[in-house]
Amino acid sequence: MEQQKVTDLPASDGPVAAARRVAAPVVGMVGAGQLARMTAAAAIGLGVRFRVLAEAADDSAAQVCADAPVGDYRSAADLLAFAAGCDVVTFDHEHVPEAALHALEAAGHAVSPPSAALRLTQDKLAMRRRLGELGAPVPRAMQVASQAEVEAIADRTDWPVVLKAVSGGYDGRGVWVCHSYAEIAEVLAHGVPLLAEEFVPFQRELAVLIARSPSGHGAVYPVVQTIQRDGICHEVLAPAPDLSDDVAVDAIRLGLRLARDLDVIGLLAVELFETPGGLLVNELAMRPHNSGHWTIGGARTSQFEQHLRAVLNLPLGAPTLTAPCVAMANVLGADDPDLHGKLGHVLAADPALKIELYGKPVRPGRKVGHVTALGDDMASVRDRATRAARYLATGSEEA
Amino acid sequence: MEQQKVTDLPASDGPVAAARRVAAPVVGMVGAGQLARMTAAAAIGLGVRFRVLAEAADDSAAQVCADAPVGDYRSAADLLAFAAGCDVVTFDHEHVPEAALHALEAAGHAVSPPSAALRLTQDKLAMRRRLGELGAPVPRAMQVASQAEVEAIADRTDWPVVLKAVSGGYDGRGVWVCHSYAEIAEVLAHGVPLLAEEFVPFQRELAVLIARSPSGHGAVYPVVQTIQRDGICHEVLAPAPDLSDDVAVDAIRLGLRLARDLDVIGLLAVELFETPGGLLVNELAMRPHNSGHWTIGGARTSQFEQHLRAVLNLPLGAPTLTAPCVAMANVLGADDPDLHGKLGHVLAADPALKIELYGKPVRPGRKVGHVTALGDDMASVRDRATRAARYLATGSEEA
Repeated sequence: MEQQKVTDLPASDGPVAAARRVAAPVVGMVGAGQLARMTAAAAIGLGVRFRVLAEAADDSAAQVCADAPVGDYRSAADLLAFAAGCDVVTFDHEHVPEAALHALEAAGHAVSPPSAALRLTQDKLAMRRRLGELGAPVPRAMQVASQAEVEAIADRTDWPVVLKAVSGGYDGRGVWVCHSYAEIAEVLAHGVPLLAEEFVPFQRELAVLIARSPSGHGAVYPVVQTIQRDGICHEVLAPAPDLSDDVAVDAIRLGLRLARDLDVIGLLAVELFETPGGLLVNELAMRPHNSGHWTIGGARTSQFEQHLRAVLNLPLGAPTLTAPCVAMANVLGADDPDLHGKLGHVLAADPALKIELYGKPVRPGRKVGHVTALGDDMASVRDRATRAARYLATGSEEA
Repeated sequence: MEQQKVTDLPASDGPVAAARRVAAPVVGMVGAGQLARMTAAAAIGLGVRFRVLAEAADDSAAQVCADAPVGDYRSAADLLAFAAGCDVVTFDHEHVPEAALHALEAAGHAVSPPSAALRLTQDKLAMRRRLGELGAPVPRAMQVASQAEVEAIADRTDWPVVLKAVSGGYDGRGVWVCHSYAEIAEVLAHGVPLLAEEFVPFQRELAVLIARSPSGHGAVYPVVQTIQRDGICHEVLAPAPDLSDDVAVDAIRLGLRLARDLDVIGLLAVELFETPGGLLVNELAMRPHNSGHWTIGGARTSQFEQHLRAVLNLPLGAPTLTAPCVAMANVLGADDPDLHGKLGHVLAADPALKIELYGKPVRPGRKVGHVTALGDDMASVRDRATRAARYLATGSEEA
């Protein structure tokens, strides 16, 4: 007989060999937002065990992870308990206190990125200093504590003056562009540590996303343009349209160099200002980043899979585009909290869209999903992505 | 001030709007094997709640699903309890007894595919009869119960004679190609209901994968070639190389017609024999299918997302290829149970591979993962996929 027989039917040609399981490595991610959620999907493919430390049982990633203990990311005890079940610990945000990171490392846990790198994303002043030491191009900035100091800067340089919270900001929060003494006073009244930064009249914002593994292997995604409003990312265009080769090479070299010199393990997103005088580093993130969401479907290896490969010291995947032009638009919450009810219209209108919904409660302005479109013409894919994202948010085709 | 301020820093410009959540639909899949596991990954992106009814807590999909109750798929009570938490119930295998399916439907649960369709995949005799009524091309077949009946067929037609278990077979199990009276006797001794089928000297095996939604919307993936050994799928080539347009159109028309006439909701995989006289239907499956695993990364919409969209009556996604040639090779377990230990070598050699590991214990011959390669030349992508799959299974580059 040429073919095999049914093992769950009576009789058999011989004993069935025993199945043997070798445990897959466990990656633990602190935080259970949409970045952890999308990493969870990537972990399924790689056959990696994935767990998240959630703040609440219905966090975005906790909804979809089989292993999602609830704990406090500020508590060294909670982090140590979480890490005990992990081969490597990584992060979906940069809010874990440095002392808690040190506790993890002191206990012998693999922490990626290591605390020495991650702390730079928690302290804008330390980050600016370190970038300065490395000779990376950055806007001029200094710590300020008084109205007089900021006024002196404003009088010496041009208005506006940019004030940034040294720690705790994201998505444009913690950044104030001040045009008057009164606005400066208002910001100082918050009583948080601040740095003042020169206002950069940039041409546009770019970002470069690098993955780096412990063995030093690096991979770079194509340089993208990010379109922000009120400090919140609205769109990402990959590759950045009409980018000169020189600037692209500068961005890639800078990104790779920073990943190496800062000893990043995992992803490093470098937000850049493109100016007539060249590139300036705006912000760094050491985790999957909104500027890389287009890689789901738009690149051969998504940033989420890439992050897992990097922290597991697996060879990195191809970061190449799957189409000439990719546009990603964020779904920013509006009045209607029902995203699923609007999915049918959007998918019917454009069957090739790639939509990700994060399972998060909707609040005006909150990132609750994103839409990616691919094609041959950037204007067209951009239009498709933004229209769909807007419809999902608002239920309207109107801009 | 042009930019927003930190809401988690002191002071604020006003109250933050309350976040509101509208529950996403819940898809329940009976069975927690690799098909459910890969569907779980697709559900994360769509923002769909996904739960599986597992046989054991460490089933392939149960490892990765936040909602994976353990129960008996043969028990109407267990199925009803499971379905109570679902908006729609679907399946990762065809082993749920018909009476239990009826119980679900009688209780008002949405069952996709409906029992009237699904039962055809459980009973090869009913399937052959129904396909015959619909005028679909099928091998000649009849139910047999005795040695004399089978011998009469063998004497009337050519040897070999194909005997198939009426129910319970998959992956070549339950199929016997008999070359002698003695082999026939051996199969009859199993005591299971059998049908005898003419042996089809096919040129090759093809498959066509269709998705159909309750609204009647259908989508078809490109026709693929499947390469089986001992009844187990080893490779899938998309699109089927050197396929004539006529045969491709025949396959697509046949698939769409069967999906409609059998009232399939979700995926329908039609396994086909290509013969000099045209196509013959070999088998049907109404779920994600091994012949469609290449669609992860190889098509704009994976079969797993497509199945979810179909059962949720969402518009179907683009089934187009993301590269001219896609090859998928199954990782069939060998002696070494450590798949992860071999991942580094394979990913380093070929950074563009798409690998899926199923988290299953390894047993010789068992499907424990798959590898997909994409490119411009089928011989090359086939070589890349099969070499990687072989290495993952055996730790050897040798065929």
